[in-house]
Amino acid sequence: MATLCRPAIAVPEHVITLDQTLDLARTLHADHPQLPLALRLIENTGVLTRHLVQPIDETLRHPGFTTRNAVYEREAKRRVPEVVGRALGYAELSAREIDLIVYVSCTGFMMPSLTAWLINTMGFRPDTRQVPIAQLGCAAGGAAVNRAHDFCRAYPGANVLIVACEFCSLCYQPTDLGVGSLLSNGLFGDAVAAAVVRGRGGTGVRIERNGSHLVPDTEDWISYGVKDTGFHFQLDKRVPGTMEMLAPALRTLAAEHGWSASGLGFYIVHAGGPRILDDLCRFLELAPAAFRFSRATLTERGNIASAVVFDALARLFEEGSVADGTQGLIAGFGPGITAEIALGSWVDAPLRTAIPHRLRSHDDDGLTLAGPDAPARRRAGTTITG
Amino acid sequence: MATLCRPAIAVPEHVITLDQTLDLARTLHADHPQLPLALRLIENTGVLTRHLVQPIDETLRHPGFTTRNAVYEREAKRRVPEVVGRALGYAELSAREIDLIVYVSCTGFMMPSLTAWLINTMGFRPDTRQVPIAQLGCAAGGAAVNRAHDFCRAYPGANVLIVACEFCSLCYQPTDLGVGSLLSNGLFGDAVAAAVVRGRGGTGVRIERNGSHLVPDTEDWISYGVKDTGFHFQLDKRVPGTMEMLAPALRTLAAEHGWSASGLGFYIVHAGGPRILDDLCRFLELAPAAFRFSRATLTERGNIASAVVFDALARLFEEGSVADGTQGLIAGFGPGITAEIALGSWVDAPLRTAIPHRLRSHDDDGLTLAGPDAPARRRAGTTITG
Repeated sequence: MATLCRPAIAVPEHVITLDQTLDLARTLHADHPQLPLALRLIENTGVLTRHLVQPIDETLRHPGFTTRNAVYEREAKRRVPEVVGRALGYAELSAREIDLIVYVSCTGFMMPSLTAWLINTMGFRPDTRQVPIAQLGCAAGGAAVNRAHDFCRAYPGANVLIVACEFCSLCYQPTDLGVGSLLSNGLFGDAVAAAVVRGRGGTGVRIERNGSHLVPDTEDWISYGVKDTGFHFQLDKRVPGTMEMLAPALRTLAAEHGWSASGLGFYIVHAGGPRILDDLCRFLELAPAAFRFSRATLTERGNIASAVVFDALARLFEEGSVADGTQGLIAGFGPGITAEIALGSWVDAPLRTAIPHRLRSHDDDGLTLAGPDAPARRRAGTTITG
Repeated sequence: MATLCRPAIAVPEHVITLDQTLDLARTLHADHPQLPLALRLIENTGVLTRHLVQPIDETLRHPGFTTRNAVYEREAKRRVPEVVGRALGYAELSAREIDLIVYVSCTGFMMPSLTAWLINTMGFRPDTRQVPIAQLGCAAGGAAVNRAHDFCRAYPGANVLIVACEFCSLCYQPTDLGVGSLLSNGLFGDAVAAAVVRGRGGTGVRIERNGSHLVPDTEDWISYGVKDTGFHFQLDKRVPGTMEMLAPALRTLAAEHGWSASGLGFYIVHAGGPRILDDLCRFLELAPAAFRFSRATLTERGNIASAVVFDALARLFEEGSVADGTQGLIAGFGPGITAEIALGSWVDAPLRTAIPHRLRSHDDDGLTLAGPDAPARRRAGTTITG
């Protein structure tokens, strides 16, 4: 058994609105021949606000890859522990009860990965397995869930901590002027997410099957240019149309499990952009409300890369509308083009903590704790061994 | 069951000898106040030859991270497929029978990872899982074996392809002048390795248990500086002494399995440097010959990062001296400081192919196929489903 528990999310304190983004595009690219197209594309994303680890003025400066990556490390160390602590709390586990940490992040690079620092500073056991993944991009959120599921299948009762740390604003490249880059500059946001997959017990999505699908010969549709100036996100204009190729993979995996991808009770899918959601909705013959969690993530936070699926899932927990046994689907999409898909059923375990209603607060670090992330009450002294 | 089959290895065609390395150090660093120390350290590595993806003159030039990483991609695409094909042949499996590809490499960065390109060009199924790991450094060889073992535990009968692609020479940084850097410039080499872990059948090491150990508070002892100029390998002078801290972890894991780490029939350990091997030998109370495979790798190819354990294992296969049921240990060491340890027993499965004697040949690509990598005879038409 592997139950994906309630995710914890934090978004940084610096906010940029759609209007500010459009104004910036008009100012920075006044002479760009395709400015009207870029503005239209940005407006069409429906992204109303995004959060950034630095003020916008600093975000727009490129101080070199050396400094950029140092900012990544500094901000990750500043923001990840609180989120990890909350995710452990939601799962009612201590750090010492975690057997594997899957750390996914494509917006900065550290060796050793942040996993080593987390183990050293947060009380994880020295024998905690580490799986850092930097090269699956936005699909890594789904991949993390799936590798955690595999691990719990391999070691029944094991617990896995997933961390997704994405500071997309640190990949802003002022010299990239293609329409795809201008669109990306208005689409991506920063966020940190963590969630625990419990091998026994826990309230959340009990993962039952997972699968991966690579769309043949699309490996250069979403990619990084790896340059002196860091990671350059390269987006092919055919990407928004990929759901026609991926929907059959979702259908096939569901059918293999005896389910219909069109008849599930909840959907947590990567919100790459509005067309991704619209198309997948149509191809799976779903009502638009089926993707309300992903859409809310996109609208309020932008595309937060591998953290999207956890932010959307946190909204499902917050809504509190899922009945025990409800079947659902989680899917991350990213470079490859790869889909990482999980099928699972909602399970309400007896050790469930009450889910508080929507509230908004600021913690000492200035991190905005939005609704889905409001701290759950943690039972003092409760320890459940895996 | 998870049997690590015979690895395939390829080293590039450009060779640098110890004498050439020492001459270069004398020429390039004639005024370096610690040149004598650096020369002594390089001599003490015992590394007699190393292989490089580019001629030495080109290796010494730093054309910028953009170009360096483009060379990484070009050389990986040029050299990996042949090795993968051979590893599949040794395991008597076709690409379509592989369920997971674990790709480890810390000397270049691609997104998507090379896994996507391999799937597209070598006939792997689109639903092949991809686990690319870039952040475990030299420990990633052991980690790849261990994650493959986990996967086979989760899905009995599944098959995993491991690829380790390390072009350490592409991380040469001419402006890094510390003694640790000068030593590294004489220690690391380039190589590509691949091996299949079969879920059923196969001759090789049947993995029975795996474990990871992080030495507390050593996360900055081996690390990358991630800079405008690419990855800068940073080696603390305390690293050669880490076996005192890691040997107990090896002992503990073996004891948990009812084995003695001092009484096993074969040892395949990461050859980080001569002191690593000497110390571990001493702490585990072993005869020097116990590490003969790792030592041969170090002497003939240098520290080839995550590929070391596969190169050493290939030499064990070549020696052909292991009796069915012999117990052994595989261990990768790297940044964290992390050890990734596997315990397994030699198994001679009925579908065993004959292991040819040592021979040396060149393939069409100009890759040197050294002894351990000589092509095995592949049984025409043999297909074993996992």
